[in-house]
Amino acid sequence: MIKRIGILTGGGDCPGLNAVIRASVKSALFHYNWEVYGIVDGFDGLIQPDKIFKMDANSIRGILPKGGTILGTSNRGNPFKYPVKEEGRIVVKDRSDEILKNILKLELDGLIVIGGDGSLNIAFQLYKKGANIVGVPKTIDNDLAKTDYTFGFYTAVNTATDAIDKLHTTAESHHRIIIVEVMGRDTGWIALNSGIAGGADIILIPEIPFDVDKIINKINERNSKGSHFSIIVIAEGAFEKGKDKTYLEKAKNEGTLPRYGGISNYLAMVLSKKTEMEIRTTILGHIQRGGTPTAFDRILASRFGVEVCDLIARKKFGYMVALSGNNIVSIPIEESISQQKFVDPYGQLIETARKLQISMGD
Amino acid sequence: MIKRIGILTGGGDCPGLNAVIRASVKSALFHYNWEVYGIVDGFDGLIQPDKIFKMDANSIRGILPKGGTILGTSNRGNPFKYPVKEEGRIVVKDRSDEILKNILKLELDGLIVIGGDGSLNIAFQLYKKGANIVGVPKTIDNDLAKTDYTFGFYTAVNTATDAIDKLHTTAESHHRIIIVEVMGRDTGWIALNSGIAGGADIILIPEIPFDVDKIINKINERNSKGSHFSIIVIAEGAFEKGKDKTYLEKAKNEGTLPRYGGISNYLAMVLSKKTEMEIRTTILGHIQRGGTPTAFDRILASRFGVEVCDLIARKKFGYMVALSGNNIVSIPIEESISQQKFVDPYGQLIETARKLQISMGD
Amino acid sequence: MIKRIGILTGGGDCPGLNAVIRASVKSALFHYNWEVYGIVDGFDGLIQPDKIFKMDANSIRGILPKGGTILGTSNRGNPFKYPVKEEGRIVVKDRSDEILKNILKLELDGLIVIGGDGSLNIAFQLYKKGANIVGVPKTIDNDLAKTDYTFGFYTAVNTATDAIDKLHTTAESHHRIIIVEVMGRDTGWIALNSGIAGGADIILIPEIPFDVDKIINKINERNSKGSHFSIIVIAEGAFEKGKDKTYLEKAKNEGTLPRYGGISNYLAMVLSKKTEMEIRTTILGHIQRGGTPTAFDRILASRFGVEVCDLIARKKFGYMVALSGNNIVSIPIEESISQQKFVDPYGQLIETARKLQISMGD
Amino acid sequence: MIKRIGILTGGGDCPGLNAVIRASVKSALFHYNWEVYGIVDGFDGLIQPDKIFKMDANSIRGILPKGGTILGTSNRGNPFKYPVKEEGRIVVKDRSDEILKNILKLELDGLIVIGGDGSLNIAFQLYKKGANIVGVPKTIDNDLAKTDYTFGFYTAVNTATDAIDKLHTTAESHHRIIIVEVMGRDTGWIALNSGIAGGADIILIPEIPFDVDKIINKINERNSKGSHFSIIVIAEGAFEKGKDKTYLEKAKNEGTLPRYGGISNYLAMVLSKKTEMEIRTTILGHIQRGGTPTAFDRILASRFGVEVCDLIARKKFGYMVALSGNNIVSIPIEESISQQKFVDPYGQLIETARKLQISMGD
Repeated sequence: MIKRIGILTGGGDCPGLNAVIRASVKSALFHYNWEVYGIVDGFDGLIQPDKIFKMDANSIRGILPKGGTILGTSNRGNPFKYPVKEEGRIVVKDRSDEILKNILKLELDGLIVIGGDGSLNIAFQLYKKGANIVGVPKTIDNDLAKTDYTFGFYTAVNTATDAIDKLHTTAESHHRIIIVEVMGRDTGWIALNSGIAGGADIILIPEIPFDVDKIINKINERNSKGSHFSIIVIAEGAFEKGKDKTYLEKAKNEGTLPRYGGISNYLAMVLSKKTEMEIRTTILGHIQRGGTPTAFDRILASRFGVEVCDLIARKKFGYMVALSGNNIVSIPIEESISQQKFVDPYGQLIETARKLQISMGD
Repeated sequence: MIKRIGILTGGGDCPGLNAVIRASVKSALFHYNWEVYGIVDGFDGLIQPDKIFKMDANSIRGILPKGGTILGTSNRGNPFKYPVKEEGRIVVKDRSDEILKNILKLELDGLIVIGGDGSLNIAFQLYKKGANIVGVPKTIDNDLAKTDYTFGFYTAVNTATDAIDKLHTTAESHHRIIIVEVMGRDTGWIALNSGIAGGADIILIPEIPFDVDKIINKINERNSKGSHFSIIVIAEGAFEKGKDKTYLEKAKNEGTLPRYGGISNYLAMVLSKKTEMEIRTTILGHIQRGGTPTAFDRILASRFGVEVCDLIARKKFGYMVALSGNNIVSIPIEESISQQKFVDPYGQLIETARKLQISMGD
Repeated sequence: MIKRIGILTGGGDCPGLNAVIRASVKSALFHYNWEVYGIVDGFDGLIQPDKIFKMDANSIRGILPKGGTILGTSNRGNPFKYPVKEEGRIVVKDRSDEILKNILKLELDGLIVIGGDGSLNIAFQLYKKGANIVGVPKTIDNDLAKTDYTFGFYTAVNTATDAIDKLHTTAESHHRIIIVEVMGRDTGWIALNSGIAGGADIILIPEIPFDVDKIINKINERNSKGSHFSIIVIAEGAFEKGKDKTYLEKAKNEGTLPRYGGISNYLAMVLSKKTEMEIRTTILGHIQRGGTPTAFDRILASRFGVEVCDLIARKKFGYMVALSGNNIVSIPIEESISQQKFVDPYGQLIETARKLQISMGD
Repeated sequence: MIKRIGILTGGGDCPGLNAVIRASVKSALFHYNWEVYGIVDGFDGLIQPDKIFKMDANSIRGILPKGGTILGTSNRGNPFKYPVKEEGRIVVKDRSDEILKNILKLELDGLIVIGGDGSLNIAFQLYKKGANIVGVPKTIDNDLAKTDYTFGFYTAVNTATDAIDKLHTTAESHHRIIIVEVMGRDTGWIALNSGIAGGADIILIPEIPFDVDKIINKINERNSKGSHFSIIVIAEGAFEKGKDKTYLEKAKNEGTLPRYGGISNYLAMVLSKKTEMEIRTTILGHIQRGGTPTAFDRILASRFGVEVCDLIARKKFGYMVALSGNNIVSIPIEESISQQKFVDPYGQLIETARKLQISMGD
């Protein structure tokens, strides 16, 4: 029988983490009458368990609308390859056994891991070694497989859309090309969705290699029709993870690659050689990972938080919660971490973007 | 072959209407090379067609983030039962034939009707009489059957959640019961979702008859645990459409029913007899129908707008677009209008609410 | 020499209270090296001093953007006329001596009172009896004399403006009269400012008695020019505190006055007799007192919080901080509480409103 | 007697421009019964007057809450030094006489110029040559002399504050240094105000030369007290316009200066050599110039727009409107453009920042 559980958050920030924590703690404490222990700073908190604390109603008071995570996240990385200083050098050690020992010592009958691809991978390995782990998928990038959406994604899309809205009137009044760089190292979900929502003219994503001349064509076509401005939304990985790295390799060879700052500045440089229009860039950065979650994300996070306790109650260890249509379902963690969810270049959403006269730069 | 289409909006306001119009007009004009006619003020615009205008790129400039509808909606109601003044009295006439005639006269090969239950019903009847109609479902209440979500709903939920957030700190600092009245005459979707997202303590919806004593119990239980405040979210139809009308009927008999203003004031009166805590009410009203749509709603609306043109291109008249999981699909209009989508009192979302220690008043 | 101070908040909620507390505590602890005691629940906390706590950096962590007050406010009212149950009846007692005794017992060398007209009055009386009190003016209504602005006011105006924005598109698309009821029992500051900012057509405030026929004239004039909608912003006190109470008295005599709910519903009823247009009302209520303060209010509150400590350091007891132009100044509490700040019916702001074609209903 | 006026906007974008235009047009058309001509694209529109149009109520419908300017702004710059292509080369010509001629030809009795330092300078020179010009000051930077505030400034501060809020939780949860780069080439108004409002730990402005070691000290001091994160707000001109250019010159000499992207990336590089903490940067860019104006800015802009018409009516040409305390006043344009308004390093606001334990890097 379950008596006591632990909960931790791992990886980058994501709006809704606190909403998951709150929901899990509420359900665990008041529905299931379990004890709940908060593990501080991700898996680190199970290696050095001095900061673990017993959670009660006060621990979660007022956190629903707050960004960040009251539990903190790991700084040092993978416990299976944990960086340790030895004789002045950094070496890597497997400290996973310490985690298992501490779980036993704390008498945790279940451990909730809220994390992205990396944390869920660690969770799965710990599960295989015997830990009673259940998972909650987390990424603002929305690129985790086997769940329709992850919490935090739509908040990030809203933040980016709001920024595009603000840039739109300036672009129009002042006849400018404005480039907005959004998150997405491997996938274009935020760029594609915020681009459609914000009425972008050009969207550049890692899944669709782009051609700078096609971008210039689109800008010129717009000018010729009386729209003397263009909004470009670019995913941060659109160059590097784009299938066609021509521009990036050329830039590296030519030594024109910027050493600091976002890739949008590089795009601005490339475009500025082919147009006389003024160009401005905005790099949203971590504001996409913060802020109060939208209602959609709060609800999804709350549902995840409640349902993951049910997984523990049913002893479905090694599983994680996921959204499928309108339902929260459970899937083996292994299935989600073995693949990444990409934008389908021939799918309905891209087709919609094209029919809206958005250029994908190809 | 399709050469020319019309587009109209019917019924109450809903964030995202302009996003649908924009998407349909863009796809029709630039992807399909059709002519597009804007029908002003809903079906009225097809009875008195003097305000119909040809739409171009300028017609839709800058409307994506705007609430309302640039096409206006009908004031006078159902063309099959059209109110007409005759000899000083209002009589009802069937003017549907005039609509059919005007569609012919305008040489519209297809007509997009964006509307709720009422407008889609009219659309279906006109379709049966021969009009080439396709539909886009619209309701902030989210109670249309056969589509997972309608655009506008999550914007309304966000607006209500934002209001609850604002009320939360006051309730807590000032030890109050605060009642927030949200839209939902027949169904509790907005109340339930904004209540979960805003961290409400009590949610009252038409689908679950409530008992005032249970509400008082919950408030007292919270007080005894040191939470000297409670947030109640009530759907406007929670009394009248609630299965148990005891309170309302009693109030009518006793003459204590308020003649003007929201039902939340009545709830405040009823509660004030059973607690000494101070009570405040907020009636959000039409601010739930306005404002810039969230990214989610803009994307959904844009997808609907594009896909409904594809229905015309494929001559799937009598059909409407709908969201199923992540896909836009098409369904017969008839299937959607024949039923209403209620919150399942035993479904996953209600179960989640209860595990979050939210009282449903029962 | 000052060694130890106390701080309390009194009266209704107001965005920025926490920002004042944070600034005072920061300056007191780290600039002046004083001890700081948080008095819980306003003056009540000095009558029953069991909840007083020593404040440190952790006490104020994360509170800058939060609405409400971490110190709570008084529930029971004036310590000079304190309601006490005696033999089953409520009688009123002067308990101010207990407050003075507790200030001595706690060895407070200074006491910061953040409050409105009522709390500052109490503060002034306590000061006259010997308490080392300094004040911070607080009201969302902006009707305190001797300070250009109070924190919280512009946040309330922003909240009301945002609501008017959301209602605007609906009013326009759906040809409606929409009435927005905002706070302001005695003065029209919020109504006037949010009305100008939101582009209202008619603004009704207590300082200018209105005439329903003039309102109808304005609505009809707008209709005749093609604007088939009107937005009315009404201060909650526009009827009752309006110099001309004709309508209200008539309503009372006729028994048509609503028993529950806002005065806007009454206005709707009155107008509905003279126009065929559809009318909707929104009663914003306490959402105007909540939410994160705007930057303007956070800065003003932070400045007040810092400067009020300087008053203590300089032993300017009996004084309060105030905004004059761009400077924070100090004035005797007595000067501010002896009068109320009204909108000047012949002042520049009203003249501006009229030149913007806004009807003041007169 | 005034019969006909023109209106133009010049320079960079600024929230509230449309609110000024709307107010001026409303007052001119309906209060003064003047004709109003919209000059498109700033002073360019008076050199090539083909896009000038007569404005009516429809011209300004719905623009109050919109960012940007419906009149566009100049692309080509100063008419006194107008760039013209001659024989393939760009030469500079004085085309101011053409502007005077076109003003005569259009029979404009007055011309409203809404613009910043640059546009007001041009306006003043044209006035000296005989043009009936009145001015409205405009800058998001708030660095125009002789007016307490300019519209747009607080909207920019709010946007920056909102970004800092979003970054705060991430910084705290993830133990990071986060640098936010805001606008302000010459002055630190936005940085200082948004830094105070957002609860920044370090604020770097052009008026106060900073020392990187002092920044590191502050970060280390925070770490030692358990705050393992710091928020730095930096004005874009803090390096270059800072009185101490040591770092920048050294960087130029060492070739480590970034060629593209904001100066915050350079600060990140410099700091990263002296701390092991992870650093992230956000460059807000033009989102500070867009978005719907706050209520404060809408009201200020509306007041400016109305009052500037009164200047025309009173034939106070060569004057501009300004805010002084709570009043709109008029001052000679010449007085404002002859100086810039800097943050006083020894003023009240800086003193407040320091008492709030904010390091100014010195």
